[in-house]
Amino acid sequence: MKELKCWFDIPQNHDFSIYNIPFGVFYTNNQKSTARAGAALGDFVIDLNSLFKLGYLSHIEDLKGEVFEKNKLNDLLSLGNKVCNNVRYAVQELFSNPNSKLKKHPEHLETILIQISLVKMLLPIQVKDYVDFYSSLDHAINLGKMFRDEKNPLLPNWKHIPIGYHGRSSSIIVGGTNFKRPKGQLCAVDSTQPTFGLTKQLDFELEMAFITCKNTALGEVISPDECSDAIFGFALFNDWSARDIQRWEYVPLGPFLGKSFASSLSPWLVSLEALTPFALPSQDKDVSELEYLKCKKNGLFDIHLEIYIQSDKMQEPFLISRSNYKYMYWNLFQQLAHMTSNGSPISVGDVYASGTISGPYPESYGSMLELAWKGNKPITLPDGSRRSFIEDGDTVIFKGFAINEHVRIGFGELSVKVLPS
Amino acid sequence: MKELKCWFDIPQNHDFSIYNIPFGVFYTNNQKSTARAGAALGDFVIDLNSLFKLGYLSHIEDLKGEVFEKNKLNDLLSLGNKVCNNVRYAVQELFSNPNSKLKKHPEHLETILIQISLVKMLLPIQVKDYVDFYSSLDHAINLGKMFRDEKNPLLPNWKHIPIGYHGRSSSIIVGGTNFKRPKGQLCAVDSTQPTFGLTKQLDFELEMAFITCKNTALGEVISPDECSDAIFGFALFNDWSARDIQRWEYVPLGPFLGKSFASSLSPWLVSLEALTPFALPSQDKDVSELEYLKCKKNGLFDIHLEIYIQSDKMQEPFLISRSNYKYMYWNLFQQLAHMTSNGSPISVGDVYASGTISGPYPESYGSMLELAWKGNKPITLPDGSRRSFIEDGDTVIFKGFAINEHVRIGFGELSVKVLPS
Repeated sequence: MKELKCWFDIPQNHDFSIYNIPFGVFYTNNQKSTARAGAALGDFVIDLNSLFKLGYLSHIEDLKGEVFEKNKLNDLLSLGNKVCNNVRYAVQELFSNPNSKLKKHPEHLETILIQISLVKMLLPIQVKDYVDFYSSLDHAINLGKMFRDEKNPLLPNWKHIPIGYHGRSSSIIVGGTNFKRPKGQLCAVDSTQPTFGLTKQLDFELEMAFITCKNTALGEVISPDECSDAIFGFALFNDWSARDIQRWEYVPLGPFLGKSFASSLSPWLVSLEALTPFALPSQDKDVSELEYLKCKKNGLFDIHLEIYIQSDKMQEPFLISRSNYKYMYWNLFQQLAHMTSNGSPISVGDVYASGTISGPYPESYGSMLELAWKGNKPITLPDGSRRSFIEDGDTVIFKGFAINEHVRIGFGELSVKVLPS
Repeated sequence: MKELKCWFDIPQNHDFSIYNIPFGVFYTNNQKSTARAGAALGDFVIDLNSLFKLGYLSHIEDLKGEVFEKNKLNDLLSLGNKVCNNVRYAVQELFSNPNSKLKKHPEHLETILIQISLVKMLLPIQVKDYVDFYSSLDHAINLGKMFRDEKNPLLPNWKHIPIGYHGRSSSIIVGGTNFKRPKGQLCAVDSTQPTFGLTKQLDFELEMAFITCKNTALGEVISPDECSDAIFGFALFNDWSARDIQRWEYVPLGPFLGKSFASSLSPWLVSLEALTPFALPSQDKDVSELEYLKCKKNGLFDIHLEIYIQSDKMQEPFLISRSNYKYMYWNLFQQLAHMTSNGSPISVGDVYASGTISGPYPESYGSMLELAWKGNKPITLPDGSRRSFIEDGDTVIFKGFAINEHVRIGFGELSVKVLPS
């Protein structure tokens, strides 16, 4: 990898290094009506719309300037990964080459660079279909142990098929958007007479989501090794879950209102290309994969994931878990290939979430359900309070980053506070 | 109800009577690029875009002409039911009043009326979220008897909660769009080693779908009696299902690829208002409803539903079942209220399907699974062949209509042929 250094100062270990250049949609308070595409670099947002209008991206083939004027990235992504990556390279060149065109026009920087603390972020995409997978082996085993059979926790299909379900796209919200504790039907385990009220078992699920950049037709199938062309990149994802609502409603057709009240996506989309140095092969499996799921490409990524909680009484967030995308059993290419294997079309702006990413150790679990083991091992927070589930006033923060001695590619944070109803 | 008579000839018992005026999106072969909004009347499509441009709808408050130029009805629906109904009334007046403005300008009819046999229909809406409910008691009991417990077929939650799940919006296709038999993971009942191949158990599900015409915000809740403002109307819906794919994949998160290869929506949307004369109260229930699901409005409709099959060798379709929307246990207002009860937003263009509508008699069941009772009672077709599931070359046709001595409100037909892979 070519060494790059930004010619303005970026603090060491910053998520938004010159190697990253994630895309998002932002606005500033004084220009609320003109949300537009941006890229994050250090503590700044690069206004891609201004960059284009000033001619700095005009050499990029097939790029149309109007894609940066929109309040969603769908039109940009629909140009495909080649064009999107060329935008990223252009930004890297403009800000790392000490003789770049931009460096020679410091008067343009006032328009192009905006302090990240001054912008508000929007949901970066118009979400088309949203799918949530269930692809972490440790998570599936943990839930099986809790709710099915301690000795035989996995269902027979789990190691053969990337289990998933369709979720609600309308309640996908961008990080920073808080929501009120939801209501739903609740029924005690030993009863069959439900009541309607506030969930008492609000939980998070630590996930990553990939976003597609391709439309396919009904009947079109994509193999795992072709999938990288159809995926733009990743964001952090919190699949908020009301365990008590979910438990009563989910038989036999799966999760519905126990999930659909809110799902949070982080504002910056990190490209697959930026994450390539951190790609890993799948782990050895004791069950052979069906041919249509076999994947030659490395589809796991060494992305460190962290979960923090901060209650209203705490001064700072408290780390409660560390996991990693490398623990996934089914990788993103296998998930997407499976999704299309029956001819179902995909669209630009589909969101495919990984499912809760739990690691093999108790301190790497990805949900309160697992971390507090069904309420049997509550977590004690620095303010002295204990948690089996999430309480009103709690802020849940996910962080994610890939790192080696040269490069850091981070996702920023996904931070959401639960408000009283 | 005021008696209306169209001043051009409409055959008696036509689905598209002057009382109906359903909306759709059509194009003609010589103007393929300009798909536009239309209304069906007898054997003609009324070009609503031309009607507006010629000034016949200019008296309607809050109506914007550009909504008729689109290839989807979402912008029209987003104007709300009051405006949409005013369009319907205007069309009724123009074509029933022998002294109407239009009647005095026969030279305009050439532009406004197009023979229905000459148009092609498009999917009438850009589908946002798609939900499939499971709200027919007889269907739930039949499936419970087949796969759970003959004596205790219903799960404990069924009579308390309108069970549903999110489905795939990208594979919703308009009636007349044929599709190829899908592939998927299949596993024999006595095995845990799946194979990948063509489904051997392709089935239809007789459903109706309602379409929303309102956007709500995260956290907004709608009561059952408020829901009629948020629903434009109904279409026929075929929730195609591959039973063998579904059986292996659906535990624990519900149907996924066994459904997502294709779901068919009929091209003409019939307004709730047109169906009002056929509204019925819910049947008496032996389980009391939770307060948030109680509904004063009549939310069932006396809509006759018919299923026909025509194989490649048959000259005409063969009737295999008659059902009715009045058999539903949960009505559309309760379904939508339930959907929003946790604060999940709805959008203009959401599709909410009823679930298979089976009646109480074997000849009123809504799927091959039930009609042929899990393959134990195959249906014999007029060409001598037998069916437990749908075969390549079969065309499945749904029809639906409400009728009394004065009025017929029909849906046309939803006809789809299954092609070999």
